[in-house]
Amino acid sequence: MKASVIRNGKFVTIETAIPSPGPGEVLVKNLACGICGSDLHLLKLFQKRGSQDVTLGHEFCSEIVSFGTATKQYLDVGQRVCSVPFLKANPKDIQIGTSPQQAGAYAEYMVLSEEYLLPVPDGTPTDAAVLTEPFAVALHAIEKSSLCSDDIPLVIGCGPIGLAIIAILRQRGLGLIIASDFSDSRRRLAQKIGASEVLNPAEENVFEHYNRLVSDSPKASVIYECVGAAQILGQICKAAPSHSRVIMAGLCTDNVTFNPYFAMEKELNIQYVFYYEYPEYAEALKLLSSGQLNWKPFITGKVGLNGVTNAFDQLRTPEGHAKIVIDPWQDGTVVNSAD
Amino acid sequence: MKASVIRNGKFVTIETAIPSPGPGEVLVKNLACGICGSDLHLLKLFQKRGSQDVTLGHEFCSEIVSFGTATKQYLDVGQRVCSVPFLKANPKDIQIGTSPQQAGAYAEYMVLSEEYLLPVPDGTPTDAAVLTEPFAVALHAIEKSSLCSDDIPLVIGCGPIGLAIIAILRQRGLGLIIASDFSDSRRRLAQKIGASEVLNPAEENVFEHYNRLVSDSPKASVIYECVGAAQILGQICKAAPSHSRVIMAGLCTDNVTFNPYFAMEKELNIQYVFYYEYPEYAEALKLLSSGQLNWKPFITGKVGLNGVTNAFDQLRTPEGHAKIVIDPWQDGTVVNSAD
Repeated sequence: MKASVIRNGKFVTIETAIPSPGPGEVLVKNLACGICGSDLHLLKLFQKRGSQDVTLGHEFCSEIVSFGTATKQYLDVGQRVCSVPFLKANPKDIQIGTSPQQAGAYAEYMVLSEEYLLPVPDGTPTDAAVLTEPFAVALHAIEKSSLCSDDIPLVIGCGPIGLAIIAILRQRGLGLIIASDFSDSRRRLAQKIGASEVLNPAEENVFEHYNRLVSDSPKASVIYECVGAAQILGQICKAAPSHSRVIMAGLCTDNVTFNPYFAMEKELNIQYVFYYEYPEYAEALKLLSSGQLNWKPFITGKVGLNGVTNAFDQLRTPEGHAKIVIDPWQDGTVVNSAD
Repeated sequence: MKASVIRNGKFVTIETAIPSPGPGEVLVKNLACGICGSDLHLLKLFQKRGSQDVTLGHEFCSEIVSFGTATKQYLDVGQRVCSVPFLKANPKDIQIGTSPQQAGAYAEYMVLSEEYLLPVPDGTPTDAAVLTEPFAVALHAIEKSSLCSDDIPLVIGCGPIGLAIIAILRQRGLGLIIASDFSDSRRRLAQKIGASEVLNPAEENVFEHYNRLVSDSPKASVIYECVGAAQILGQICKAAPSHSRVIMAGLCTDNVTFNPYFAMEKELNIQYVFYYEYPEYAEALKLLSSGQLNWKPFITGKVGLNGVTNAFDQLRTPEGHAKIVIDPWQDGTVVNSAD
């Protein structure tokens, strides 16, 4: 089979053996795999570290090909499935597509644990199902924010997670959904997906505006940080309304410096979030299958395995993109644009 | 009257006019005033800034002397009272004892707003009532921590706020209450007041021990940070158990640098707290009057107005002290020790 692997710091498409499903495992054919922001972090990491090949890919929609031993086979061969990107193991599940230990979906085939398979309902497009993982992340962030129906959310950063949060907030019927991003096309996407107001931080003071909006509703302020840049926590502490709940969903691995006095004076609550609970993943697939979410604008580009390098290049300056999806069965190397 | 004021960066005892209560205000005689950790911060601040005299003192128990106009006089002259350290004002109440704007209780007399007076119940010692303010801070920190009866709290820092938190946790019947402090005498105080286990960070790894204690009770970890040193947030993020609720009660005005990745991976919730709601202040007085709290060990020293400088010197190296109380009607300049 073909796989796009990180070798000596670069993506190369290689010919490799189709993996064999072990006990309790299933061989699947990958129909589509989203490129995650964390994949960009992982590429950098393995550029520094790695001699072993790594096959990324933890946002996938696949199809059952065959079963290993000790499987229950309650689903049919050919059934489309999603799964949390973990292989069932003791004492701790193994991450799929984030290390050399377990290959992900930047390949034609991979193995999954039967127990974690979720059938994709007939009628749900593969392009909707492939978004289950980022939507699970967004759903989890919202669950951790103790959202009330009269909250006035501010979403900072309209990348895939910010956009997924906006889509779910819209589906939940929130009246005001404020979103901010420097990118014109991302702000347009945010509006398409459900933001009631989009702001460009280069042109206006986002927090000044937001403080005015929540001034009559103390404790309605809930802020979803979906950028992950080191300076944002300090900006939020300085400028956010008192008693804001701040959900830190943007991955940041750099040291952060901020003045906690502002956070203290305002009694900010800062909730860091990471991944999701498995039931939230199932809930996300259900939501995407329900037809209630405007997921279509998310997919702004498609490539084959040979196009991964090009896709990563484009995602590094994310002006034009939300989610680029890899289709391992097509040859495309050129990413179509968002607009 | 006599007052101890900050003048040219130093405390001096001066002779000054007894203030006149305005409309809705009451003249009170100060029976006792605690020295707060934030008073040490304020001294530094006014050493940098100030030409105007400042009378500190926002933890007090006083006695009604006379009433201004437009008062209801539902309490008698001679009644002992506590009050939130705020003067009622529009649009925003004025802090008492933290700025040149409104003199505090480092003096024989001051004015308070009648509306905020709380009578100290007969039988409640003045030394208990004078602790109302720090206990209100502690109560508020606990309220903001969504405490459950099977939580396993860790209190970092056994100064007055840490100790008050321990006392309230004990009164609420929590089984395990872990406390840490570098000071031997403060650890002894913590044990007297209700900690089930006290740890010396110089001798053992506090978090290693704490992680073992909560390992069987995920989500039972609630950490009260009562030190305010800039490096502690980073230590907590690195070493705290997953899903800890971290209550930041220690005042820190310096920049803080930490790595948020640990906080994210563990989904820490960081709640900054500041002051209290007025009803919590009343609740604290009620608690201290109830006889259910072991408040006696708190007061480790007493001085007169001439002893303020000496008291501040001792509190700067807080090895031996919890709360030093000023009695404006005594002459003592020497602080008695904790032991």
